[in-house]
Amino acid sequence: MKIRVGIFGYGNLGKGVENAIAQYPDMEVAPVFTRRNADALAIQTPGVPVFHEDELEHMQDELDVLVLCGGSATDLPVQTPKYAGLYNVVDSFDTHAKIPEHFAQVDEAAKNSGKIAIISAGWDPGMFSLNRLYARVILPEGRDYTFWGRGVSQGHSDAIRRIAGVKDARQYTVPVPEAAEAVRSGSQPELTTRQKHTRECFVVAEDGADLAAIEKEIKTMPNYFADYDTTVTFISQEELDRDHKGLPHGGSVIRTGVTGKEKEHQHVIEYSLKLDSNPEFTGSVLVACARAAYRMNQEGMKGCKTILDIPPALLSSKTGEELRAELL
Amino acid sequence: MKIRVGIFGYGNLGKGVENAIAQYPDMEVAPVFTRRNADALAIQTPGVPVFHEDELEHMQDELDVLVLCGGSATDLPVQTPKYAGLYNVVDSFDTHAKIPEHFAQVDEAAKNSGKIAIISAGWDPGMFSLNRLYARVILPEGRDYTFWGRGVSQGHSDAIRRIAGVKDARQYTVPVPEAAEAVRSGSQPELTTRQKHTRECFVVAEDGADLAAIEKEIKTMPNYFADYDTTVTFISQEELDRDHKGLPHGGSVIRTGVTGKEKEHQHVIEYSLKLDSNPEFTGSVLVACARAAYRMNQEGMKGCKTILDIPPALLSSKTGEELRAELL
Repeated sequence: MKIRVGIFGYGNLGKGVENAIAQYPDMEVAPVFTRRNADALAIQTPGVPVFHEDELEHMQDELDVLVLCGGSATDLPVQTPKYAGLYNVVDSFDTHAKIPEHFAQVDEAAKNSGKIAIISAGWDPGMFSLNRLYARVILPEGRDYTFWGRGVSQGHSDAIRRIAGVKDARQYTVPVPEAAEAVRSGSQPELTTRQKHTRECFVVAEDGADLAAIEKEIKTMPNYFADYDTTVTFISQEELDRDHKGLPHGGSVIRTGVTGKEKEHQHVIEYSLKLDSNPEFTGSVLVACARAAYRMNQEGMKGCKTILDIPPALLSSKTGEELRAELL
Repeated sequence: MKIRVGIFGYGNLGKGVENAIAQYPDMEVAPVFTRRNADALAIQTPGVPVFHEDELEHMQDELDVLVLCGGSATDLPVQTPKYAGLYNVVDSFDTHAKIPEHFAQVDEAAKNSGKIAIISAGWDPGMFSLNRLYARVILPEGRDYTFWGRGVSQGHSDAIRRIAGVKDARQYTVPVPEAAEAVRSGSQPELTTRQKHTRECFVVAEDGADLAAIEKEIKTMPNYFADYDTTVTFISQEELDRDHKGLPHGGSVIRTGVTGKEKEHQHVIEYSLKLDSNPEFTGSVLVACARAAYRMNQEGMKGCKTILDIPPALLSSKTGEELRAELL
């Protein structure tokens, strides 16, 4: 019997989850849930119904895991604790500073319901976190660095779009190649925010807008741009739609450290991702975690977990015997 | 109280384990054990006794974990099942074809004793296996490749040393850069053994040896060299000792795969290692696994495990709360 995975929220991430489930022979898309008008929502998978969120109150017999595809700002802080009380759930909560609070709320709900809830899955937080952990336990005397990009930052694109006179915008976060090379050399450099990444902004201005004022407002925006070398390029809506439609992303976690009696040997561990579609890759990670959530719960576990707690073999549909033969 | 880690076998790997333990504040080197004359063995850590293997019969109150640093050919098949019957143990068993058999024997012993035995730890098998697993569960429609090197292969160096007229030798396994680039492009190429790696041999010949005959014997040696483009360079013992004393290694696991409704998005996951000292890095992985073995056993688990079974957080001395705050 296949693992029945429900999807709540059908934006880019929800669609990524749906496509990922289709790649796994041991899973199937259970209903898709929405807060909007369910009748108006057309999904890709044939024969799968779309329900309003309200139906989640009573679908416990029809779902093995529910993947929550809402946003971290307002959706997940409410949805994940609520539905961890009813289902095994997975989310991609990524508001770093609030993870402890989110964990505590979800853990309480999941322990009460006897379910597994995996939070903050994806690639950062997620696979990058995991690789920081592995690299740190192997090379305790060392230092790690994370580079993001080249990739589209939705948050920074949104920040530009909120400026008066801006019609549309796309922002790319770009790692500085020299900084990454300095890290790989093992010199464990001190790098400022500015030295690690640059920001490239492609902006569509409204007719008659003050371009110089927009550029200045972007470049001096605190937190988002002021600490970076930022370039602003004004383009037409056609160019934006043609050349900047995708959501690529990626990056690297690099740790260097030393071993030996005299600390004479240096080692470099690097994990890197190059992704054509950030939401689809994130969706694939969520689906692998959905399998683990189901299997951990089948083994009698309950409560809130992160990818740091998941025995890796439980992410796979294969048996331990198969994995040892094929991968070790 | 610190985790007391015993070391059995004091070659390069045993020394690597000893140095690694010194880097972790939560662990200490418990006695070192040897099959040879314990009185003649001087170890680095001050104040730590060296015992003959026979003493392992009765040290259960003094050791929390025993790291087995013998060879896979004849030592570990005997030692790991034997000592899994008495201690939590970790080994680096790497004879791929015999892992299922080794696992079964060790599992039985560890289940009977109520201990945890982690086998085949290191980087390949080990961290590379783990990264194959993570990459496959995230990108099921894809293909992965492993490149090794540039690094010293002890097995190939030994094979050359067994040839008549050879006094000493060092063999480097070298990945072909074009092959790795083709893989990263996502084209999922079919690559022959010859296309993936070359082999560089540095050979010290005995006085008056037939160099042409040695070179021919190396290049035509089945399994070891015949399927590779191999270069043979004759050097003096002084040059070998001066330029080829180290044991560097490394490599990459690269998986590319596709997602999306029309499989239109491509992703690349790459994990790579660049190691100045293969045995020291391997020793560091074994020590992190020793901590996990102890912690898993403290949580009531028993039996044989591999790194694929270890909840990552148990490799660390930090609490789940600390890890979530620092890494997620």
